[in-house]
Amino acid sequence: MNNCTFIIMGATGDLAKRKLIPAIYNLIVKNKINKCAIVGVARSEQKSKALLNLSKPFIKRKEKSVLNKLEKAFHYISIDFNDFSEYKKIVHTLDEVEKKQGLSGNRLFYLATLPEQFDSITKHLSKSNLTKTKGWSRVVYEKPFGNDLKSAKKINKCIQRVFKEDQVYRVDHYLSKEIVENIVFIRFANTVFEPLWNRKYVDNVQIVLSEKLGVEKRGNFYDKTGALRDVVQNHLLQLLALTAMEEPERLSADNIRDEKARILKKVKTKDVLLGQYEQYTKESNVEKNSRTETFAALHLEINNTRWKGVPFFLKTGKKLEKNQVSILIQFKRPKCLLDPCPEATNRLEIRIQPDLGFAIELNAKSPGESKTMPVKMNFCHSCLFAANTPSAYETVLQAVINGDQSRFVRNDEIEYQWKAIDRIKSKKHNVHTYKQGSDGPKALEKFTKQHNMRWNV
Amino acid sequence: MNNCTFIIMGATGDLAKRKLIPAIYNLIVKNKINKCAIVGVARSEQKSKALLNLSKPFIKRKEKSVLNKLEKAFHYISIDFNDFSEYKKIVHTLDEVEKKQGLSGNRLFYLATLPEQFDSITKHLSKSNLTKTKGWSRVVYEKPFGNDLKSAKKINKCIQRVFKEDQVYRVDHYLSKEIVENIVFIRFANTVFEPLWNRKYVDNVQIVLSEKLGVEKRGNFYDKTGALRDVVQNHLLQLLALTAMEEPERLSADNIRDEKARILKKVKTKDVLLGQYEQYTKESNVEKNSRTETFAALHLEINNTRWKGVPFFLKTGKKLEKNQVSILIQFKRPKCLLDPCPEATNRLEIRIQPDLGFAIELNAKSPGESKTMPVKMNFCHSCLFAANTPSAYETVLQAVINGDQSRFVRNDEIEYQWKAIDRIKSKKHNVHTYKQGSDGPKALEKFTKQHNMRWNV
Repeated sequence: MNNCTFIIMGATGDLAKRKLIPAIYNLIVKNKINKCAIVGVARSEQKSKALLNLSKPFIKRKEKSVLNKLEKAFHYISIDFNDFSEYKKIVHTLDEVEKKQGLSGNRLFYLATLPEQFDSITKHLSKSNLTKTKGWSRVVYEKPFGNDLKSAKKINKCIQRVFKEDQVYRVDHYLSKEIVENIVFIRFANTVFEPLWNRKYVDNVQIVLSEKLGVEKRGNFYDKTGALRDVVQNHLLQLLALTAMEEPERLSADNIRDEKARILKKVKTKDVLLGQYEQYTKESNVEKNSRTETFAALHLEINNTRWKGVPFFLKTGKKLEKNQVSILIQFKRPKCLLDPCPEATNRLEIRIQPDLGFAIELNAKSPGESKTMPVKMNFCHSCLFAANTPSAYETVLQAVINGDQSRFVRNDEIEYQWKAIDRIKSKKHNVHTYKQGSDGPKALEKFTKQHNMRWNV
Repeated sequence: MNNCTFIIMGATGDLAKRKLIPAIYNLIVKNKINKCAIVGVARSEQKSKALLNLSKPFIKRKEKSVLNKLEKAFHYISIDFNDFSEYKKIVHTLDEVEKKQGLSGNRLFYLATLPEQFDSITKHLSKSNLTKTKGWSRVVYEKPFGNDLKSAKKINKCIQRVFKEDQVYRVDHYLSKEIVENIVFIRFANTVFEPLWNRKYVDNVQIVLSEKLGVEKRGNFYDKTGALRDVVQNHLLQLLALTAMEEPERLSADNIRDEKARILKKVKTKDVLLGQYEQYTKESNVEKNSRTETFAALHLEINNTRWKGVPFFLKTGKKLEKNQVSILIQFKRPKCLLDPCPEATNRLEIRIQPDLGFAIELNAKSPGESKTMPVKMNFCHSCLFAANTPSAYETVLQAVINGDQSRFVRNDEIEYQWKAIDRIKSKKHNVHTYKQGSDGPKALEKFTKQHNMRWNV
């Protein structure tokens, strides 16, 4: 039976409030779970009802009866995560709640806490026998998953002492976005892309994640982290892996993760450009002489038969001109059988933010003339499916309940990702200042020119 | 200088009235010709002004000043095409008009007459020295170009005695439709199609030309002709040649025609289904026991490395369910890496009538589910360029003036096309009756089933 107990560690945080509780609400509305209990756990003293109320602004199309269900299912316990003796409070609550509500003891532990607490919580969950249950027991970790290879390995080791890999769900919520899941479908459920998806036809690949916002209230965390660790290590490298991986045997979790890991292992850095936006050092909780990068442009290469010599350009930054997340496969220039030669317009664009969709750009004939003109054929996912598209966190929770790990990052992937970032970090790079609202440092122009490319996204 | 004299043989016919005069009007409006004279020639006595007036309903967005120009440029002469002595009337008129209007003597002879008159007109044009001019001299023939290989060869021979092949423009007006010209551009001005355009990835190709109308007033002509000779021999086989041809060295007239001819030479007929609509024999000027086909479905094959084993299905008919001209490239079923397997949705559709455009159909992910759904990415040519798109006959005349033969059918192509039709005609085929407004004879279902296909267009 499709029922489970959500145990949210860090229940008073933003993630629980804005994403997890609303996602559980949606799963109930859509009848994706028959019965459930939610046990929120955090340090501060709170009333469960008051805590739940904080989530309500993030729940769309509220239905009274479902809100009532949610309220009945929700319990809050205050504990100190580092104090083992307090975990018995969770034990008692779970026993009681699961019995009362006739649940099978399927337990989904969601660690929406600071990563510093992963280690201690993991150990205590096991020691208190909370993970020994009649049903299944699965644990979900949120990023950041370490801040370098060494710390990630330490967390992985600690987890492995308590859980088997098939119980562990490391969230990269980008992987649960509908349009990101579509990358695998576009590539492997169609006849027409795979033959083109290689060095013979692809000129370059561009993966961009740009934000208008600055560090906002996250100065403390961000200043120690920077763009490379904050988004390149996870989201951008995962998008790269999905775009570049070989065809898996089946579109199953382990096949996909095998192929992603194989690619991540082979990523080589060829060029790095870092930047920091003007006035960054004036942001609250940021060091006055900080050289933390808020912008990165990378030229990567994947040394295998499919991709040898094809540049993968990654670009990300805060306080940039626009909000945009997208992947662009730029195909090579068409043969020139015409005068003037056709332009290098052939490209596939996968748009992840702000709108969802994909588009193919082609050369067609300019009406009445014997030359080409670019035309764009668009598939607007958000226009068609806005209402039906589950949020990333709905998909995250649903996948954990289904035991489907395809959207989650395996230990080896995480470690290869860190290796790539550590290699970049191990070298000194200039950090170029750039104007807020611009498209990055002035040096980007040189980078772009040197690589004989044009950013299309 | 861009000037010329149009000599329209058969100036009182429908083609001149509905297509040629309005096309010349458009070329003047668009400044595509600086100066011109139009000399209409036909048997009946007419006033030039009265004749020109018959064209006015077919001229869109009339401008007074351009109409005046057209009137001044237009002259009508009545002659008997078979009487050589009368051609001196044309000689006189041309000399006079070209002198008066300061034209360079570029002469475009347009044979908009019955094909029975091609032979005699061609001979007389030459004998009267009309084709000996200071400028260029080009001759345009309209279909039908013969009614079998023998008669086509006879016409070609007669033409070759008088004109060099580079002066001869055999019109297939389909080749001057913007979207048909786009076929070559789509294939050869893009990187992404050519690698997919072969037996490895294409399951089948479908070329359809269906009409709601019956034979109307053309009973006399049609009953002697039938669907195979009327539209398969020319339009459908030309569309097939453009779709199937190898990459030409350049997108130039002779390179394209070389490649089309090569394909037309290799077309093999594998299966034939003919039909006649109910009540056809009651149409005026149709034989009461006529077995003329008004419908044909063909399975053809092209025996070369690219296409061996790929069926080309052609379908055409009168009094069918809808008006539609289109080409469909059906790609093979995607590999099955999923349960349920993805559907065989991958296809490229080129729409020629009623709307112009092309579309790609793909599999994407069904939102919130782990299965595929078809999505269509459309490029609507008519939506974007309706106003700018020249009519087929505007393009025909413009091309003749430019000396660009790429849209015209060479002697060898015409002969290969007739060979293919003669081979079909040499065998006896049942002619199945079908209901008006249906999608063809009942036997089509069996045909479709036998070939394990599905008509998508």
